[in-house]
Amino acid sequence: MDEFALIRRHFSGLTPAGAPGVRLGIGDDAAILAPPPSHELLMTSDTLVAGRHFPLQTAAADIGWKALAVNLSDLAAMGAQPLWCLLALTLPASDDGWLAGFTEGFAALARAHGIALVGGDTTRGALSITVTAVGSAPAGTALRRSGARVGDVVCVTGTLGDAALGLRRLAPAAPSACAQTVHDIAALRARLDRPTPRVAAGLALRGLASAAIDLSDGLAGDLGHLLAASGVGAVIDADLLPMSTAFAQQAEDGQRLALQAAGGDDYELCVCVPPAHLAEAQTAVAASGCRLTVIGCIDDLPDLRWQRAGQMIAGPQHGYRHFESAAAHG
Amino acid sequence: MDEFALIRRHFSGLTPAGAPGVRLGIGDDAAILAPPPSHELLMTSDTLVAGRHFPLQTAAADIGWKALAVNLSDLAAMGAQPLWCLLALTLPASDDGWLAGFTEGFAALARAHGIALVGGDTTRGALSITVTAVGSAPAGTALRRSGARVGDVVCVTGTLGDAALGLRRLAPAAPSACAQTVHDIAALRARLDRPTPRVAAGLALRGLASAAIDLSDGLAGDLGHLLAASGVGAVIDADLLPMSTAFAQQAEDGQRLALQAAGGDDYELCVCVPPAHLAEAQTAVAASGCRLTVIGCIDDLPDLRWQRAGQMIAGPQHGYRHFESAAAHG
Repeated sequence: MDEFALIRRHFSGLTPAGAPGVRLGIGDDAAILAPPPSHELLMTSDTLVAGRHFPLQTAAADIGWKALAVNLSDLAAMGAQPLWCLLALTLPASDDGWLAGFTEGFAALARAHGIALVGGDTTRGALSITVTAVGSAPAGTALRRSGARVGDVVCVTGTLGDAALGLRRLAPAAPSACAQTVHDIAALRARLDRPTPRVAAGLALRGLASAAIDLSDGLAGDLGHLLAASGVGAVIDADLLPMSTAFAQQAEDGQRLALQAAGGDDYELCVCVPPAHLAEAQTAVAASGCRLTVIGCIDDLPDLRWQRAGQMIAGPQHGYRHFESAAAHG
Repeated sequence: MDEFALIRRHFSGLTPAGAPGVRLGIGDDAAILAPPPSHELLMTSDTLVAGRHFPLQTAAADIGWKALAVNLSDLAAMGAQPLWCLLALTLPASDDGWLAGFTEGFAALARAHGIALVGGDTTRGALSITVTAVGSAPAGTALRRSGARVGDVVCVTGTLGDAALGLRRLAPAAPSACAQTVHDIAALRARLDRPTPRVAAGLALRGLASAAIDLSDGLAGDLGHLLAASGVGAVIDADLLPMSTAFAQQAEDGQRLALQAAGGDDYELCVCVPPAHLAEAQTAVAASGCRLTVIGCIDDLPDLRWQRAGQMIAGPQHGYRHFESAAAHG
């Protein structure tokens, strides 16, 4: 089968008929798209490389899901409604079974968020996937990293550290493990392989949050970017970081803060909210299907600082860095 | 230097202050962009993989140029005005000199076309580059592959075969070569390394051409896609394919048709024009800085057929195919 037939067959189902604004989808030199009037567009590209952004043994369907999820997470952090995406897929060989799995995972998440695949490229090389995602927001309403103000509370959606702990428990539970452990490890792995982009939470926070960022490299590093963009500092209480049941069961005390604050791959949102909006923001995010937990507050001292039980403690300052941590992650 | 500082330093100059529609460029989870009112957007992603889309010894500046050029060529084929782009760069290591060269080549072409870099990603892995380019056209005016009608003439911009011949003459000319040969080979190599996307020609052809496609995989294959999309056939005269002086000097008679029709990497436009618009189209493209040459016509017989001196001949039917020609190109 030639390249063109292969692309057509696997991806033809990903552009639903009548998708909003799609005048012409896959099959020409470029897609023709009609942006919604009086809206701004939000646009992001993220690449996943095998062995770096997902373990080599990851199932094709999970890779397809995650390639789209990391981009939807960026749109979520801007408070954007997903519209369209493009998929640039580099593969070592034309593997029909792999492509079917990849497409199934990608399509499941695309359908859940009503995002239409409108173009892309397929080429041969070491496995890597770049997705470009486009969303929209009424002009002037997109969330940014730069809007945090002294006195805002710092919140996160969902729970932190699950994916990072899942990555450290790649092997299946031992045959002797209890049923609870088997269940916990599967839950942690699911958070690593199939992250849930907080699109509905991001939409709910428009007009309520003062600043937002998605957590891909870990809370410490990503919140650090938000603080730098806003020109403020923050103090975070390590005991307030939300944990899943599986994480609470499986993580050892001494590793919790590192996993939750510098482990990466959470794909939760970290947002700053003026206190007057907090109750409304928590209600709105709860209605979207996850919790919004207060973890600290914005102040006018420099950088990110950590406390526990009212005492300042040393804590992580950086997230995952691609070019510095090659030896550890390569 | 960490990933973030590295990205900032090299790419900060590529988002000119006051670029049209850029509300927020690089540095947040997504760019915020205001599309021009009453326009449609044209969007495309193309990936270049080292050793596949460019020779391994290609200079970083030429790779940067070409990564953007192949995407601008897609916008050109739609008759789009370039607006914004995103760059997903996967690199085996953080190499400051390489990045400086890459950025210089990318920036030179971006400035020439007024396209602003608004986002992207940098990660570690085998060298590959995915650019997503966005352009605009007044609603309903974008060129498509599907509009060719029986009786239209088939035209191409510029000259064909130069890059394909340049790829076969990768070694510098022998010391004994005459000055003309040295000059010719440099000219052919420049066409391979720094293709000229026909953006101005594409804009000039809006309202005049009935269909268009860019020539990346070779005339035979790409025109074949246009014919299939339009539901028509064509007869092309091999003697009419436009040649550069360097190509005419350096190509052997027996290899010319294969290089010009199936060599790939031309990044010229192939367009269909109703005869009533031909003179105006040729004048408009000439004003944009290149020639528009008639090479055949659209008819109602199936597929692409070739003739020479009034006689039907066998000719190429397919272009470069990524997944079938791995052994030859890998």
